[in-house]
Amino acid sequence: MIKVSVFYPNEKGKKFDMEYYCNKHMPMVQQKLGNALKSRAVEQGLGGGEPGSRPIYIAMGHLYFDSVEAFQSAFGPHAQSIMGDVPNYTDIQPAIQISEVKI
Amino acid sequence: MIKVSVFYPNEKGKKFDMEYYCNKHMPMVQQKLGNALKSRAVEQGLGGGEPGSRPIYIAMGHLYFDSVEAFQSAFGPHAQSIMGDVPNYTDIQPAIQISEVKI
Repeated sequence: MIKVSVFYPNEKGKKFDMEYYCNKHMPMVQQKLGNALKSRAVEQGLGGGEPGSRPIYIAMGHLYFDSVEAFQSAFGPHAQSIMGDVPNYTDIQPAIQISEVKI
Repeated sequence: MIKVSVFYPNEKGKKFDMEYYCNKHMPMVQQKLGNALKSRAVEQGLGGGEPGSRPIYIAMGHLYFDSVEAFQSAFGPHAQSIMGDVPNYTDIQPAIQISEVKI
């Protein structure tokens, strides 16, 4: 199993519409990716490791697939429409990481 | 539900013993935190968003709790022994974030 994580850095003066992300963007992504998408998760940053510190990321989205190839095959044909929806909820440039799920 | 994420930046020349982390560290953490720990996850970085790019994090560990208070109550008494085990698997200084699970 692999996990595609999309990290939205917690930059001052930037917007992130969590309601749109959860209720519009993620359902659209799920519909486009179909059965290749095994699971998904969304988190909102609360704080850092030190009390009172700011979170590194204001939001994180995670998509799970059987393999990198399964992700690429499913995402490729819809990349443009999925990425085109990003300005509807944020002006933050996200960072992306692909990971292997160990536990 | 809240998620405590521990991010290990993918720094050149640093070590990360994934086998120790999965088979020794995480079971010890689970044993110390007991029932307050609702779930846990570990991932190993494969790559970034661009083909051939390096992952931001060489590893990530995630611990789920009912609330920030539940995490603090469970972790506090064991912080020293849990943190003291870190040098056994890595010389990377991890970054920590607490997030609210939305989906």
